[in-house]
Amino acid sequence: MMDRHFDENLQALKYQLMKMGALAEVMIADAIKAVVERNEEVIPAVYEHETQVNLMQVEIDEACLTQIALHQPAAGDLRFIMGAAKANADVERLADEALNIAQRAKTLLKAPPLKPFEIIPEMAMIARGMVRDSLHAFVNRNAYLAKEVLLRDDRLDDLKDAIAVELTDYMTRDSTAVVRALNLLLVSRYLERIGDHATNIAEISIFVVEGRDVRHHADKKTESRFPSAE
Amino acid sequence: MMDRHFDENLQALKYQLMKMGALAEVMIADAIKAVVERNEEVIPAVYEHETQVNLMQVEIDEACLTQIALHQPAAGDLRFIMGAAKANADVERLADEALNIAQRAKTLLKAPPLKPFEIIPEMAMIARGMVRDSLHAFVNRNAYLAKEVLLRDDRLDDLKDAIAVELTDYMTRDSTAVVRALNLLLVSRYLERIGDHATNIAEISIFVVEGRDVRHHADKKTESRFPSAE
Repeated sequence: MMDRHFDENLQALKYQLMKMGALAEVMIADAIKAVVERNEEVIPAVYEHETQVNLMQVEIDEACLTQIALHQPAAGDLRFIMGAAKANADVERLADEALNIAQRAKTLLKAPPLKPFEIIPEMAMIARGMVRDSLHAFVNRNAYLAKEVLLRDDRLDDLKDAIAVELTDYMTRDSTAVVRALNLLLVSRYLERIGDHATNIAEISIFVVEGRDVRHHADKKTESRFPSAE
Repeated sequence: MMDRHFDENLQALKYQLMKMGALAEVMIADAIKAVVERNEEVIPAVYEHETQVNLMQVEIDEACLTQIALHQPAAGDLRFIMGAAKANADVERLADEALNIAQRAKTLLKAPPLKPFEIIPEMAMIARGMVRDSLHAFVNRNAYLAKEVLLRDDRLDDLKDAIAVELTDYMTRDSTAVVRALNLLLVSRYLERIGDHATNIAEISIFVVEGRDVRHHADKKTESRFPSAE
């Protein structure tokens, strides 16, 4: 039995979520641009977009509640709407991480550059792709894509470990590098967190599509939210 | 109109959530004990409890879905159950942070102690209290207590900033201290994250009780998820 009004609302919900994700992705790109290209001018936009993301989060939560209360959706749709409310929280929080990166950029731009770190842009590229594709997988109920996103999180964790080794070495050898290296290390941790949130969204997608929970089915790697591929 | 079966299920849901929170709190206590008292013996329990927490998360999510699908609850109860599903995710993630602390403890115990840091136990005490009270506020729909939890997050952020200054100083002055100081810094960040999750739960509680969203109503402090009291 198709409820046309419900169906339209569901489409609107998906669109809102994708729009919010796209905005969060722009925030990540700008925050990383500030760090890597030492471009201070993009920082205010990160703050403005964060305010928008926050408003969108409140709207999406209300839309989810209204959808359930008015239409009493069947099991599959209910699962999807509950998933949307959860994915919504993850998008808001990964946008917060972009804001954290912008804040680190401010500190980093006050000192001379440490050296070009290729790992940061690579991590950012992976994290952005994970955000985009996890949300795409969610709204299109594409479990295959969601699983593929989960695998990428391992690469992000490996890069995080690699840059930690490199930066720790810097700090040990040169005491004047400590503060800058520490700030770059935090940037890499924020990118890793963004990947964790995308991982959460991917797991929610699989849960919605397959009706089963893929979380917690194997041992965890250090600080990784999802087991490595076997 | 009172549905006795629904009411009993709601009680069971609250109980499950409190039990999960209590377990997460024990995990934080044990992980911090490993760091501060250099006690390796408590670490395996953190890992075991994390597995339990993960199972509880899946159960609670299913219980939330079942409650909504079977009983089609009225607006207030629907809001509560959606809130429970979200708080559930936060408890699972803060338990992950306790696991991260236990992992840092393993590394820290391989080297001689850096020095006694009083800030870590104080942060842990505050974070544990925030977890306990935010969940208490949620299940008892106590917005007053929830707001009080939000204020404590500022203290946690201040302590995180204080220990960062202290540890950065250590790293700058003594290159042999870099790795240990860095691990302690990460421990303080994980505790701050636990506070962030408790803050999320407190915000959900206020949303459930007052039917309004207290999130995003003021400017953010650095890396703080909630504005300071004004």
